[in-house]
Amino acid sequence: MPVNYQTPSAETLLPVAGVRLGIAQAGIRKANRRDLCLISLVPGARVAGVFTVNRFCAAPVQVCRDHLSRSDIRALVINTGIANAGTGEPGLIAARATCVAVARALELAPEQVLPFSTGVIMEPLPVDRIERGIPAAMDNLDEANWYEAAHAIMTTDTVAKAGSRTVQIDGRKVTITGISKGAGMIKPNMATMLGFVATDAVLSQAALEALVKHAADRSFNCVTVDGDTSTNDSFMLIASGTAGHAEITSLDSADGRALADAVTSLAAELAQAIVRDGEGATKFITIEIEGGRDVAECKAVGYAIAHSPLVKTAFFASDPNLGRILAAVGNAAQNHPSLMDLDTSKVSLWIGDFLVSKDGGRNPDYKEEQGAAAMAPAEITIRVALGRGEARATCWTCDFSYDYVKINADYRS
Amino acid sequence: MPVNYQTPSAETLLPVAGVRLGIAQAGIRKANRRDLCLISLVPGARVAGVFTVNRFCAAPVQVCRDHLSRSDIRALVINTGIANAGTGEPGLIAARATCVAVARALELAPEQVLPFSTGVIMEPLPVDRIERGIPAAMDNLDEANWYEAAHAIMTTDTVAKAGSRTVQIDGRKVTITGISKGAGMIKPNMATMLGFVATDAVLSQAALEALVKHAADRSFNCVTVDGDTSTNDSFMLIASGTAGHAEITSLDSADGRALADAVTSLAAELAQAIVRDGEGATKFITIEIEGGRDVAECKAVGYAIAHSPLVKTAFFASDPNLGRILAAVGNAAQNHPSLMDLDTSKVSLWIGDFLVSKDGGRNPDYKEEQGAAAMAPAEITIRVALGRGEARATCWTCDFSYDYVKINADYRS
Repeated sequence: MPVNYQTPSAETLLPVAGVRLGIAQAGIRKANRRDLCLISLVPGARVAGVFTVNRFCAAPVQVCRDHLSRSDIRALVINTGIANAGTGEPGLIAARATCVAVARALELAPEQVLPFSTGVIMEPLPVDRIERGIPAAMDNLDEANWYEAAHAIMTTDTVAKAGSRTVQIDGRKVTITGISKGAGMIKPNMATMLGFVATDAVLSQAALEALVKHAADRSFNCVTVDGDTSTNDSFMLIASGTAGHAEITSLDSADGRALADAVTSLAAELAQAIVRDGEGATKFITIEIEGGRDVAECKAVGYAIAHSPLVKTAFFASDPNLGRILAAVGNAAQNHPSLMDLDTSKVSLWIGDFLVSKDGGRNPDYKEEQGAAAMAPAEITIRVALGRGEARATCWTCDFSYDYVKINADYRS
Repeated sequence: MPVNYQTPSAETLLPVAGVRLGIAQAGIRKANRRDLCLISLVPGARVAGVFTVNRFCAAPVQVCRDHLSRSDIRALVINTGIANAGTGEPGLIAARATCVAVARALELAPEQVLPFSTGVIMEPLPVDRIERGIPAAMDNLDEANWYEAAHAIMTTDTVAKAGSRTVQIDGRKVTITGISKGAGMIKPNMATMLGFVATDAVLSQAALEALVKHAADRSFNCVTVDGDTSTNDSFMLIASGTAGHAEITSLDSADGRALADAVTSLAAELAQAIVRDGEGATKFITIEIEGGRDVAECKAVGYAIAHSPLVKTAFFASDPNLGRILAAVGNAAQNHPSLMDLDTSKVSLWIGDFLVSKDGGRNPDYKEEQGAAAMAPAEITIRVALGRGEARATCWTCDFSYDYVKINADYRS
């Protein structure tokens, strides 16, 4: 059960003109699962993306980067079951063969197709099954298929993740709809996650690329479940360009800002949904770091807290053993050397509205009952002030429960 | 139940001439527990130590550093129950008051006493209880008390950890005996752990300081349970100087090497015992990294594997989902930028004797049954060759089980 998240109904997911989605059961790893999703784009659509920083990045990620740099993209193909990561040269050949098969079916060049895979690492991708599934996915292509697509890209997710926004640009209604998947191996840069957001807005390629980074930095790059950055993470932003308004060439314009806010809001909702559905999650935790010298060190402190198994198990138990948070703050310097001169006597810690720690020690007015009250709800906010600058950052995570172990120990069995 | 570790019998723990230990029940956090240990040293004994790098280092660690720099140490006092960390200025006052109380009882100067604490963070240290417990600990002082002392410093440990070695130096028998504690919040630099090793060897202060670092780098700084570096970690090496051989002034001499090997061997056994008793551990995992450009990047890769919750849960399940190890290798660069240019096509991975992955993908000859066979025993070795240099490093960790969550969710309740 995710923490305060429900899949929106199919009717609330708005079609994006020029973007059709088709789903099929290809039997990639197990039979009778929707495991193949094809997205077909109108001519003139633009695509931009951000990808995992894992050095063992998956074959499809390598092919995506190559194709995005070379061509106008007209189709995306997503499979679940097999990640096609840690597969070496044969994996690259398989990812390219997938693009060839889609290109043949849709009468495109192979480099106009972007491949995405999620699932088990170091297993070969059964391209033949994908090829056999493509006709059914083609027959299914429809602008109204976002709800089905959200389900088709799930792996250990317990719920499908999707959402829509509309915004007025230049007197025209612009629609934005997106889907995401992921529940474990979730960490900044990026989560094990696939995210696809499409809009009918009209943007230059440069503005689209700026927007995908802007939105990722405020959404998918702010979440962590278990600190493991996946090999396959991809967040793609598609602009079909059919909305009929004047082209947006900069995010600094009024129209650019309005679109950026709407896209970022949807991306944050989709990213938070991944944490809310984090493997075994029972709590949704917002970690706000302020008073740092720069955003990077604020993020380093936030993630040191978010990745600490001791902190996460304390949240699971609703146990205000908050000294563990101070210990995590003190450890952030190991991965972020600028924090080696952190003066812990200037650090303050709040849980909810309660000041727990200041001057390097416990706030004399803090009472354990306050901490227990703040830990009880399913949504918890921690705030840490570093006392050495003006920068701030936020990240979102979940707790660490028996079910996390169960899910990850049993995943393949 | 620790993985292949039993506390040695009391009789096999050899007394070290000039080092007496006394245990008491001081009721520091709970009644009827041995929670106070006093170590009294003969005049002329020398002490050196290494400490946590956590920025929120505990008050006793700060006092230890100060006293070690100022005086000849004649006593150590260790309490469990309360860590006296995250306690600000009042915590420092409490740690110093503990030294004053011990100094008064043993007729020393306060700066000749080193204080150590382990337990819950951000709670005040009840100095009055420690003061009231000191007479009983003094009455108990005896060179034969290592077995009792090993029990008195336990927190979430399920077994006491101790060992002895003897070595011939300059025709004399030299004895080395040590104890350690720790089971969670365990990470390099250092583990949440206290380690005390004493020898009757005669060493210069410089040689002793070199030896404590040499041994720590090959023992306590090679272990991790959960990636959380504690606020209180301390590893102390005591040389009572009573063995009657010529003073060792360098580890490069034959005698120096013999002593260093024996001390390091014991320290590694004590450090590994902490991992074997890791919270919820069911497997003991040795991670060997070779072919790196330097030791630091080998360690970074080793710890990226050792800290991955996905890898650790797969070991718990004996599931050869070994792609998760490649993903962890690929993530090491995030905390160690020199690895950003890691060429994954040159990385090889073995589990036990089986070559699992090479050329960036799966070894065609590898069979899943081999991985399953290698994952089944309680002791598992992983080897990763980075293919870019001659450096190597080893670290030791354990798996991640339901019981880890249970222990850490229930610790204070």
